[in-house]
Amino acid sequence: MRTLTTEGAMLTKKQIEEAQARAIEYLDKAGIVLTPEEAANIEVADLGLGDLEHTGLELVVYVNTDRVCAKELVLFPRQTCPEHRHPPVAGELGKEETFRCRWGEVYLYVPGEPTPNPKAIPPQGREHTYTVWHEVVLKPGEQYTLTPNTLHWFQAGDEGAIISEFSTTSRDETDIFTDLEIQRFTQVKEE
Amino acid sequence: MRTLTTEGAMLTKKQIEEAQARAIEYLDKAGIVLTPEEAANIEVADLGLGDLEHTGLELVVYVNTDRVCAKELVLFPRQTCPEHRHPPVAGELGKEETFRCRWGEVYLYVPGEPTPNPKAIPPQGREHTYTVWHEVVLKPGEQYTLTPNTLHWFQAGDEGAIISEFSTTSRDETDIFTDLEIQRFTQVKEE
Repeated sequence: MRTLTTEGAMLTKKQIEEAQARAIEYLDKAGIVLTPEEAANIEVADLGLGDLEHTGLELVVYVNTDRVCAKELVLFPRQTCPEHRHPPVAGELGKEETFRCRWGEVYLYVPGEPTPNPKAIPPQGREHTYTVWHEVVLKPGEQYTLTPNTLHWFQAGDEGAIISEFSTTSRDETDIFTDLEIQRFTQVKEE
Repeated sequence: MRTLTTEGAMLTKKQIEEAQARAIEYLDKAGIVLTPEEAANIEVADLGLGDLEHTGLELVVYVNTDRVCAKELVLFPRQTCPEHRHPPVAGELGKEETFRCRWGEVYLYVPGEPTPNPKAIPPQGREHTYTVWHEVVLKPGEQYTLTPNTLHWFQAGDEGAIISEFSTTSRDETDIFTDLEIQRFTQVKEE
């Protein structure tokens, strides 16, 4: 795995703990209850860019077996999960995902006719890494199923969002991001 | 499929609509939002016994592809999903299920050491069709993953329960119930 050379690309433990506490506030708004262990283990993913406020997400993985995966995704206001796809792995189809909005509002982008005046604004300076612009707006109770290997990205509205993800096995390390500076796993900076 | 001959084994449209409305009240308590179409299509399963208050459940199927399924299960107070298992189908492993309690309390029973003084009480007259008694209590945020083809049954506590189910494909018609009088699909009585 490529190592980033800029210090800004790492999160401190304090930043991670703050993001976890904030994620719990959003989960509370959606009425979603976690065990204390789950709350302590919320994944904070800055995707290696060190700009969590704009690029990244917070995840609670409920289950991830060799057949099924379920997660809650937390997006802070206008936080963006950047463009990526889930390729075939070891002869198996790539990950199939259903995103169900539980709270807030989500702008999801997939291949197809670009939507005029899209609601999302890509993170500044990285606009060139967002290439699919067909917009799907998800409000609470609305969902969308992505077939394997389909490019997609999504951003929360001004209030943030909670999304339930129902999918086949997650193999995050095999995800292919359009932005070549991204790395999937967060590096923690020693303080 | 066997046809039941007693009229009591069918639900009227009115009974189904009342159960749907009641299920929505419980989903509201759990903060779960449905689209109007989902709300209108909540499945009311009396499992052919015509005694929905004691045996049955209410289901919202979010997605069911050839790889992944996700549902919400609603149980009214002390309502029981009777003992069954998910066998292999067409050379594939049976359904793998994770039950996550979102609201209320669930008493889940699986093979293993029988639990003394179990919290659930099987529906009257059908006690002989409940054969596994190892108890798992699930409170909000707690979950349990069942391997394929494992016998299981569950009952809500006194307040009812909402359970998210994350699983492989649902093929309900292949489920094997211990109670031979059960049929999985509800018959609607013409009024």
